[in-house]
Amino acid sequence: MAKKRKIKKVRKTRKIKRVRKIKKVKKVSKDYGRLALALHKKLGGKIRTTPTRIVRTREDLSVIYTPGVGAVSSYLAKNKHKTREYTIKGRTIAIVSDGSAVLGLGNLGAEGAIPVMEGKAVLFKSLAGLEAFPIVLSTQNIDEIIETVIRIAPVFGGINLEDIAAPKCFEIEQRIKEALDIPVMHDDQHGTAIVVVAGMINAAKVVKKKLSNMRIVISGAGAAGFAVAKLLDRAGVGDIIVLDSEGIIGGGRFNLPAHKKELVQFTNKRKIAGYLEDALIEADAVIGLSGPGLLKASDLKLMALRPIVFALANPVPEILPEEAQKGGAAVIATGRSDYPNQINNSLAFPGVFRGAIDNKVRMITDEMKLKAAIALASLVKRPTANKIVPDTFDKRIVPAIARTIR
Amino acid sequence: MAKKRKIKKVRKTRKIKRVRKIKKVKKVSKDYGRLALALHKKLGGKIRTTPTRIVRTREDLSVIYTPGVGAVSSYLAKNKHKTREYTIKGRTIAIVSDGSAVLGLGNLGAEGAIPVMEGKAVLFKSLAGLEAFPIVLSTQNIDEIIETVIRIAPVFGGINLEDIAAPKCFEIEQRIKEALDIPVMHDDQHGTAIVVVAGMINAAKVVKKKLSNMRIVISGAGAAGFAVAKLLDRAGVGDIIVLDSEGIIGGGRFNLPAHKKELVQFTNKRKIAGYLEDALIEADAVIGLSGPGLLKASDLKLMALRPIVFALANPVPEILPEEAQKGGAAVIATGRSDYPNQINNSLAFPGVFRGAIDNKVRMITDEMKLKAAIALASLVKRPTANKIVPDTFDKRIVPAIARTIR
Repeated sequence: MAKKRKIKKVRKTRKIKRVRKIKKVKKVSKDYGRLALALHKKLGGKIRTTPTRIVRTREDLSVIYTPGVGAVSSYLAKNKHKTREYTIKGRTIAIVSDGSAVLGLGNLGAEGAIPVMEGKAVLFKSLAGLEAFPIVLSTQNIDEIIETVIRIAPVFGGINLEDIAAPKCFEIEQRIKEALDIPVMHDDQHGTAIVVVAGMINAAKVVKKKLSNMRIVISGAGAAGFAVAKLLDRAGVGDIIVLDSEGIIGGGRFNLPAHKKELVQFTNKRKIAGYLEDALIEADAVIGLSGPGLLKASDLKLMALRPIVFALANPVPEILPEEAQKGGAAVIATGRSDYPNQINNSLAFPGVFRGAIDNKVRMITDEMKLKAAIALASLVKRPTANKIVPDTFDKRIVPAIARTIR
Repeated sequence: MAKKRKIKKVRKTRKIKRVRKIKKVKKVSKDYGRLALALHKKLGGKIRTTPTRIVRTREDLSVIYTPGVGAVSSYLAKNKHKTREYTIKGRTIAIVSDGSAVLGLGNLGAEGAIPVMEGKAVLFKSLAGLEAFPIVLSTQNIDEIIETVIRIAPVFGGINLEDIAAPKCFEIEQRIKEALDIPVMHDDQHGTAIVVVAGMINAAKVVKKKLSNMRIVISGAGAAGFAVAKLLDRAGVGDIIVLDSEGIIGGGRFNLPAHKKELVQFTNKRKIAGYLEDALIEADAVIGLSGPGLLKASDLKLMALRPIVFALANPVPEILPEEAQKGGAAVIATGRSDYPNQINNSLAFPGVFRGAIDNKVRMITDEMKLKAAIALASLVKRPTANKIVPDTFDKRIVPAIARTIR
């Protein structure tokens, strides 16, 4: 009788604890929103344009501006290849968005995109020492986005495309890359892919599995899902299955858009059809790049032993770490800063662009991205279940990644 | 004999002095070019993007970037009119050029335009405390320029068009103004016009003439010439004659482009035909907005007593001040910093945009520009031949002009 009571008490406490923990997390997230609104209003924008020389005298004016500047203009008109040396082009990235897929919040339009792009400019400077300026577009038309970015490119040393919805993001990135001789990267695709692959390399070490023998399920075939699948394939993962909202891709479905047709070429080798439960059977890892709450603890029971769970929907993941643990997950990662193993683009893009600028790289290739992922993973000497990627503020990250972009 | 020798000696000395002075000026200009090239290479661009908050911890990241920033994005998507308060839009100007008319140097293209636009960004910050970012375009097509500027406008609080060739600059400015709800100004037109009119108001005081009774000749019917003519007309000048490279406009010439047809409506009231010499007869003032060396001392002899000469071609004016003085000029102004009375846009644009931003002005009108010119002129309490405009670094200028833009 005493024993029974004790068990009951323990269960009660546990339950309360779990509820409390989830509540706490929710409360914290809410507070960040309020804090952010208050801070953004106070700051009135998160970046400033600061002169490298303040103009105080006529002499200053004559060198920084007219008449002296005329000599620099004439020189660059004749020697366009020197523009990086004499102007901000040598260090400035455009962060371009049409606001069609802002964070996980959907189509918020140009104005809704500005705070995110400004935040990214802050990260470019804080983490990589690069200048960056937000450009948000009042159009969401593919051709118009492409031609606009091409037309404003001369002053920029690189283009970071951001928060542009799939599938148009693929064509937009491809055509801009082909048109310009500066590095162009859609970060929602490739920044994410680099960090996910780095995390998976180390997660595999934790569970003592080889990537080449692993079966990895990706829930979500948007910008991130597509790029992650491609980079995992390049990393040598044996079996990749990608799902969109209608189920497994490549199991005999028709009328697929171009990027999903491309997925059919190298994923789902066993040609299975069905839904998430079907894909998860005996899978070694699941990567959620879709929406909140899509995974249940019971789903993880279908997977192979010691399953790896990356639940990256943000701010609310496909499955909360507490639930994933209940389902037996051996390694859990999310996109959030309040849990261990935060998979966040800010681990990749500062180093990628730093490297592209320093090494005068015109095109960021898949090979470079894979090397970047490996370099990022290698910064964690002894990966554990709670430490598969380095901390965002680890000073070694940017130089380590930059070295691979050449 | 002794007298003769003395005169000869004096003449010789004078000649030498003049030659020296001109040489010196040329040398100085050359040095500014060299100094500018060296400084620009050293700086690697004249502006930086500086965060208002450096991100050092996960906490910072959660407020400046995700997840907190999501709340700001969602808020702005629903309340677009609040964008100025929460983002850099409330204080940031785009300086846009296609490089088709860089300074007086001609069509240098996008790369050649960058150093000037960066310099302008430095002035915006140094003189008016406004953020500004240079956007140079890889197109010089009217429709493409217009649609590009409209598409990138959401993050900007104002558009400063710069160094775009006439006559396309007129249509470009007009159509962008109509499309956007933020202030748009082609500075080569209106910045110049405000400062020229301010200078003319004070020059007229120096020679004790009334603007309404004056005959003013403008050599040059480009962006600046057109805008100066319009603002002088609005200021009440009695008789304005504008010339282009083919002679006086409005004396029975055909096949004029639209802006020259507009000039015919309100200039050359006496319908005279001919060239500069014909226009100058009995003129009270001549404003050069054309090219170097177009005026000779003997030309000024044709003008009314105590003629006013604004020789604004830059860096080499239509007539050097030494020559103009020889021709009897009572007041002389140039665009150069090494002579008195420097007529430079930097006296106007910082205050105009400061006012437009502070007073939330959507359209900068001709009435505002005239008030700005009067305000600028009034800062010189007792105008003299060597002091018709305030110094660029006079702290009173920006607030005085800003008050008129409302």
